[in-house]
Amino acid sequence: MNPYVRIFDTTLRDGEQSPGATLTSAEKLEIARSLARMGVDVIEAGFPAASPDDLEAVRRIAREVGNPASGDGELVRPAPIICGLARASTKDIDAAWEAVRHAARPRIHTFLATSTIHMRYKLRMDPEEVVERVKDMVAYARSLCADIEFSPEDAGRSDPEFLYLVLSEAIKAGATTLNIPDTVGYTTPDEFGELISGIIANTPGIENAVLSVHCHNDLGLATANTLAGIRAGARQAEVTINGIGERAGNTSLEEVVMTLHTRRGIFGLETGIDTTQISRVSRMVSNYTGIPVQPNKAIVGANAFAHEAGIHQDGILKNQLTYEIMRPETVGLSRSNLVLGKHSGRHALRARLEELGYVLAPDQIDRLFERFKDLADKKKTITDADLEALMEDQVNQFEEVYRLDGLQVACGTMGMPTATVRLQGPDGSLHVQAALGTGPVDATYKAIDSIIGAPNVLLEFNIHAVTEGIDAMGEVTVRLQAKNGPSSQRTSPQSGQPHSRSFGGYGADTDIIVASAKAYLAALNKLLISAGWQMPAKALVPASPVQIQEGGQYAHPVRPI
Amino acid sequence: MNPYVRIFDTTLRDGEQSPGATLTSAEKLEIARSLARMGVDVIEAGFPAASPDDLEAVRRIAREVGNPASGDGELVRPAPIICGLARASTKDIDAAWEAVRHAARPRIHTFLATSTIHMRYKLRMDPEEVVERVKDMVAYARSLCADIEFSPEDAGRSDPEFLYLVLSEAIKAGATTLNIPDTVGYTTPDEFGELISGIIANTPGIENAVLSVHCHNDLGLATANTLAGIRAGARQAEVTINGIGERAGNTSLEEVVMTLHTRRGIFGLETGIDTTQISRVSRMVSNYTGIPVQPNKAIVGANAFAHEAGIHQDGILKNQLTYEIMRPETVGLSRSNLVLGKHSGRHALRARLEELGYVLAPDQIDRLFERFKDLADKKKTITDADLEALMEDQVNQFEEVYRLDGLQVACGTMGMPTATVRLQGPDGSLHVQAALGTGPVDATYKAIDSIIGAPNVLLEFNIHAVTEGIDAMGEVTVRLQAKNGPSSQRTSPQSGQPHSRSFGGYGADTDIIVASAKAYLAALNKLLISAGWQMPAKALVPASPVQIQEGGQYAHPVRPI
Repeated sequence: MNPYVRIFDTTLRDGEQSPGATLTSAEKLEIARSLARMGVDVIEAGFPAASPDDLEAVRRIAREVGNPASGDGELVRPAPIICGLARASTKDIDAAWEAVRHAARPRIHTFLATSTIHMRYKLRMDPEEVVERVKDMVAYARSLCADIEFSPEDAGRSDPEFLYLVLSEAIKAGATTLNIPDTVGYTTPDEFGELISGIIANTPGIENAVLSVHCHNDLGLATANTLAGIRAGARQAEVTINGIGERAGNTSLEEVVMTLHTRRGIFGLETGIDTTQISRVSRMVSNYTGIPVQPNKAIVGANAFAHEAGIHQDGILKNQLTYEIMRPETVGLSRSNLVLGKHSGRHALRARLEELGYVLAPDQIDRLFERFKDLADKKKTITDADLEALMEDQVNQFEEVYRLDGLQVACGTMGMPTATVRLQGPDGSLHVQAALGTGPVDATYKAIDSIIGAPNVLLEFNIHAVTEGIDAMGEVTVRLQAKNGPSSQRTSPQSGQPHSRSFGGYGADTDIIVASAKAYLAALNKLLISAGWQMPAKALVPASPVQIQEGGQYAHPVRPI
Repeated sequence: MNPYVRIFDTTLRDGEQSPGATLTSAEKLEIARSLARMGVDVIEAGFPAASPDDLEAVRRIAREVGNPASGDGELVRPAPIICGLARASTKDIDAAWEAVRHAARPRIHTFLATSTIHMRYKLRMDPEEVVERVKDMVAYARSLCADIEFSPEDAGRSDPEFLYLVLSEAIKAGATTLNIPDTVGYTTPDEFGELISGIIANTPGIENAVLSVHCHNDLGLATANTLAGIRAGARQAEVTINGIGERAGNTSLEEVVMTLHTRRGIFGLETGIDTTQISRVSRMVSNYTGIPVQPNKAIVGANAFAHEAGIHQDGILKNQLTYEIMRPETVGLSRSNLVLGKHSGRHALRARLEELGYVLAPDQIDRLFERFKDLADKKKTITDADLEALMEDQVNQFEEVYRLDGLQVACGTMGMPTATVRLQGPDGSLHVQAALGTGPVDATYKAIDSIIGAPNVLLEFNIHAVTEGIDAMGEVTVRLQAKNGPSSQRTSPQSGQPHSRSFGGYGADTDIIVASAKAYLAALNKLLISAGWQMPAKALVPASPVQIQEGGQYAHPVRPI
């Protein structure tokens, strides 16, 4: 048995800090379940001190994914460790503990910057103060929780001697994992490997802790740096699905795992990851976050496997290994994925969904089956990707304030694109508005805006076809930010300052304008909920319909947090 | 002065082998001009033996970009070397020479596989035969051209001793650059660095040649491997813009150049690249190839620079270097890029385009100005990105067989999306058709198909907003492949077999359905031209309109190549 490398997934924490990656609580839970099923050792589920919503989302994951007996009973392996991030303050550590303590194996991850530039300009603390704070806060966290991770932020640019001191004090104070982040993605593999070797050689007590690496991809070197750290002796890698994260993102889970797998001859290391889950989880994260994966992305890009694109077919036919160093099946891509058609029944649908890893309640199956039949009337064959798009569309509709009830659009080269939108409001009443726009999506969004009246800035808008062929479903992802609205802010763990959240939305339909309307509504619903909108209980539907006010004010009973 | 690393850009050769990246001759020329302006040392302009079109495109680049005196007189540096790829055969080498000889500094790049698996299963040659072929073909190429590059394909998996032998024979036969490809993206940085060190230490005559590295990104390690090769002594890096290429792509130009730049303290090396051109060329390549760049792509992703996303703003305000290791201006991102509005005149437009690197003829300015005014009527402010989208839309329309003359679409949740399309055919006649589809794009494409009748499979469909805001222009990229059509094949350099080409199209408009129609027409026009369609001379317009036939046959006077 080779030595084991722990995979610590921070898609839900550092990944979710990507602009627009904001996820609903339901989406976070689905992703956490998928990560657990894939065999991730640690799930960093969020930064509980950011906002009450963030705390609640982590708590829900701790309860529902962090316990082997809970959930759908499918988890044959021990539940993953559920980790919450905390700055080096008692308030943050209390919030993290409050969120993760419901897991069978909770972890608190606290951090403080150790580079000169961060200590001077961000923390405004002396090195001595930093050491004292680390000792105090690690000890405080350890008084609550047996599993404590400590990170010296911006370690890649810190003085190594100071780093050894801080780390040894953290170990003495009770840290069980020490994570070395290259926060700004500045190091090269040689440098980062040497940093890790130096820490192992010079930090008293390091043999009593697990050493971890956390890299960023600003120069395109995150995977190589992570692997250099592992070769130097790190035994935990912090990664995200698709490499999402702020700026150029974090290290990609799939690249690290598949390099260790494909080149196990030279690395001689094991992970607990079921690699056949990689493609599916990649698609889920891309769809939920609205962050697309480029076709030439390693492992999970649409073109990553040669045979799929029909290129080098000859070489492949002669010998699979001529141009293929990995089998697509290893990451869960099946060569044929046409599965269902219009004559497929509810049983076939449920069976296929279960094979894809979705376990649905009967009423969810009913809703999905109805939409499946609609789609099968329009499309000859329904692929796994279509099913996943339907599933994701449905998960995204869990928290609806406004729901699309009808849409009618006229557009073209005559230059008068017009949309008429009918929405069902939170009280069940219907609202209809028409609007003229620069294009059909603009017209649709203007009509929706004239009903909901939540001023926002559209930051991003993407559409792509789910499957090949002209009758494909279109998936739309949008990202928007509230303009002058009530609190839509959360605290950044690095700067400690509130920053404006942006909200992603996803919609799928064979009609891309309908999908665009759904995606926009999904993002607006997230914005409304985040701004304090509470879903009225069924019995408490307000008698009066939502009013549209002049000047773009929120007309709902918004309760600022 | 630090030692110099040559940047060899193969976007137009290895990059263009990406599924769907097929570029028109006009697009290739625009990209080559931009690469030259950016300071690339060598442009690998194509694989001339692939098809007569490919040869002609390389010849045009050799003539127009490969000579300092030609073009717009702006080139103050010597023109780049123009390189053509050739398999190790006299036929291929002749084609490459015929294409590149018009450049001031032509290069022929020939290659032959040296790994056991490739020699046995692909070449079916003994190692002795491989050595003889390399000697003969390098000598033959050298008899034509003074600058010869040789690559042992799949070097990353070749026996090092055999590699030393092949390389030393290639040098004796006249090779001036030896390029070491990790064809399947299998190596790790340590391995690849050792491979390069081994070659330098053990190849007789290596001091008389430039050593080059060419990596693929299957495990996400292309940049790190390239840098490891450079540190070991390679002095040419083969790269593509945005890292495009088959499967997970090639090494990214921008990642290698910006790492050498940002970390020049540890690398101590220079390149000739004007880094401020990187963002612009990245967008051009993405738009022309239809291959999107993910937001978390290093250097050129939309989120790559922290400040742009408004994240970590506080840290940045306190000290720019807290979270920013590169300045966005260094790669050509300007912090404010609102430039023009509806009152801007033709002069302001031309001045701004020249600042962006586009030099247009007066009739091109006229066409663009008309579209600029149209756009300015719809959008308050016109950004650089909008201008680039307009420019790219226009470049893409250079070779039109069919042109969109009118479009009218109705769609929505009632489930009867309908499109009416009017196209102007190659003879100037107008054709109108209506069609029902699963969505507005499907309906539009069906209506177009019913006029043009070129059977095809839609492989990809993407839309995104050019700029922020709800009135943004939409950019659509599509990729399609001919179905049962006449020759749309070209020879693959690696397998030597013909493979089906796929065709990308691009369209931009504030109405995404109009943009979708334009993109589809652009791709169909490429398909028609590639299938042998020749634009009729104005005086030779056929009397009869194009006929639509049953069964999806081409009804045009198609001339198979």
